[in-house]
Amino acid sequence: MRLSIPVVWSEAHRRHAPETGVWVGVRIPADEVPERAERIRRSLEDAGAPIVRAEPHADETLLAVHEPALVEFLRTAWAAWSEAGYPGDPGQDEVVGYIFPTPGLLGVVDPHVPRSPAARTGAYCFDTMTPIGPGTWEAARAAVDCALTAADLVLDGAPAAYACCRPPGHHVTSSAYGGSCYLNNAAVAAAHLRDRGVERVAILDLDAHHGNGAQAIFWEEERVLTGSVHVDPGAGWFPHFLGFADERGVANLNLPLAPGSGDDAWLEAVDRLAEAAHAHGSEALVVPLGVDAHADDPNAPLEVTGAGFRQAGLRLGALGLPTVVVQEGGYVLETVGSLVRAVLEGLAEA
Amino acid sequence: MRLSIPVVWSEAHRRHAPETGVWVGVRIPADEVPERAERIRRSLEDAGAPIVRAEPHADETLLAVHEPALVEFLRTAWAAWSEAGYPGDPGQDEVVGYIFPTPGLLGVVDPHVPRSPAARTGAYCFDTMTPIGPGTWEAARAAVDCALTAADLVLDGAPAAYACCRPPGHHVTSSAYGGSCYLNNAAVAAAHLRDRGVERVAILDLDAHHGNGAQAIFWEEERVLTGSVHVDPGAGWFPHFLGFADERGVANLNLPLAPGSGDDAWLEAVDRLAEAAHAHGSEALVVPLGVDAHADDPNAPLEVTGAGFRQAGLRLGALGLPTVVVQEGGYVLETVGSLVRAVLEGLAEA
Repeated sequence: MRLSIPVVWSEAHRRHAPETGVWVGVRIPADEVPERAERIRRSLEDAGAPIVRAEPHADETLLAVHEPALVEFLRTAWAAWSEAGYPGDPGQDEVVGYIFPTPGLLGVVDPHVPRSPAARTGAYCFDTMTPIGPGTWEAARAAVDCALTAADLVLDGAPAAYACCRPPGHHVTSSAYGGSCYLNNAAVAAAHLRDRGVERVAILDLDAHHGNGAQAIFWEEERVLTGSVHVDPGAGWFPHFLGFADERGVANLNLPLAPGSGDDAWLEAVDRLAEAAHAHGSEALVVPLGVDAHADDPNAPLEVTGAGFRQAGLRLGALGLPTVVVQEGGYVLETVGSLVRAVLEGLAEA
Repeated sequence: MRLSIPVVWSEAHRRHAPETGVWVGVRIPADEVPERAERIRRSLEDAGAPIVRAEPHADETLLAVHEPALVEFLRTAWAAWSEAGYPGDPGQDEVVGYIFPTPGLLGVVDPHVPRSPAARTGAYCFDTMTPIGPGTWEAARAAVDCALTAADLVLDGAPAAYACCRPPGHHVTSSAYGGSCYLNNAAVAAAHLRDRGVERVAILDLDAHHGNGAQAIFWEEERVLTGSVHVDPGAGWFPHFLGFADERGVANLNLPLAPGSGDDAWLEAVDRLAEAAHAHGSEALVVPLGVDAHADDPNAPLEVTGAGFRQAGLRLGALGLPTVVVQEGGYVLETVGSLVRAVLEGLAEA
């Protein structure tokens, strides 16, 4: 049976192709690479899914969830950086911060935004692993267009649509990027649904890491439920500072899981997220979908199987709500495509 | 004429010997190196100054200005790091953070302190340029002992004493380290003077960068005036987010200067700091002394001359107050010793 869910796609993701990232002061090979999206697309094409080109949307859609200063920084950072002429070998000369305005630095003082591009980065980025290269803005902007086009398909009556977003977005808050993410594709899509008349929306984040971006963006927003199942940050996993069960916004649910949880515990959490959406009265879903909870993925130890991912699709599909699936993490090139396909096949079959 | 000001010294500074630091994601050679202190000592010995060994002081002296969690982190970070086995070639395997809990990441959530050493660093450090190696704690702790021993000499009646502190300390707040600094030697010395009966103390920071640490530590403390002359952070200089004239605590004065200011403007600012101490009724001075305002120093463009530094010593000495001078920055090995000597000779002559 052909996979009926349309796959929204943009070639522009290839423009973002970091070779390395900086982790604990050491250059390590990048894992959020263009080949990820290519593999996913190929797998979904093989399943017979229709490929839909992303439609451009106006920048103002970004401003529904992001502060103008963040958007402007992302748009201009590479140009300012290359003009400043910072050192770095090719592939290691991207925008990376070095000073960060933590509460410990700032105390009670309201900080100025630094003038030097080197320092300014820390005003908008919270880690050293999310480099901005010459094509990052174009790619990140196109990823948002993918998510918005998928949302439009659902608004136009499709039961579900999948946005093959790259770079991912779920760690980006209203004012800060990081975690290999630049613009919060899923949050923009959710705001788009809300602003086009969907009374209540649920963002149910299946990526193996906490969806801290949507949590922060919609912290005080009753109409947008944010839920996330992820590996317990208290066990030593990104984003480390956030993602705990005691973080409760107006409509927010964090379900951190112990390392090694496996299918049963993970699917029980997926069920709890689905129940929360039902209780919330959500009329549409946005699913930030990472497949890094899979047993083969070194980025999280949740030990979920391919069958588990298919089950997750089935269970979310059982809600019977219009659903926008937005690609987030998943870093094993050999399996990332089949795992995304498993979720979408479950969703389509439900 | 022999320089009469005693020079407090500890060999332990040599234990902190970073080869590199991480700036904008790129390894650059360290400039806060052991040879700095050796050059300063040699220059002051040549001037005939008596060398005094630093006396150990109890850890509780640190807790007068630093949170216990920061002290505990610094004391244990290297052991936890090397046990965790992070990557890095020799000399590039020191404790460096990669995720930082900026307000943009945290939003309204009170963050947890991360469990993984890699992430925990960001809970206590605000940059990537301040690595912790195997001997950093020992050296930083000894630098505090230098400052405290100099304060003791002044409490015992010496008109002035100089602490050859390395690593420096003036960027460290109560809860966060950075800027090549680990413990705030000058702030600990000021708190020691205050707690041993000096009613009012002034910290007058001559380093070319803002003394943000003491500003934050004593923000609400009327008995400790904090003043700083430094290159305008708004012109693109460290610490970038702080050091502006509009930051006013209970007793705090920031005098940012434009790049290229030179002796006249700098000495006028030194005079203003001295006047503020007089108006404050300070009974003792602590002078965080960087000589990086010098024209040869690439770390700040203030273009101060050796004669200017001597004048600064004279002008602060004219206050006639017991004075503890604490070494901060100054990175040109050829001149760092003679510039410190110039300040101390001015101070002694006043």
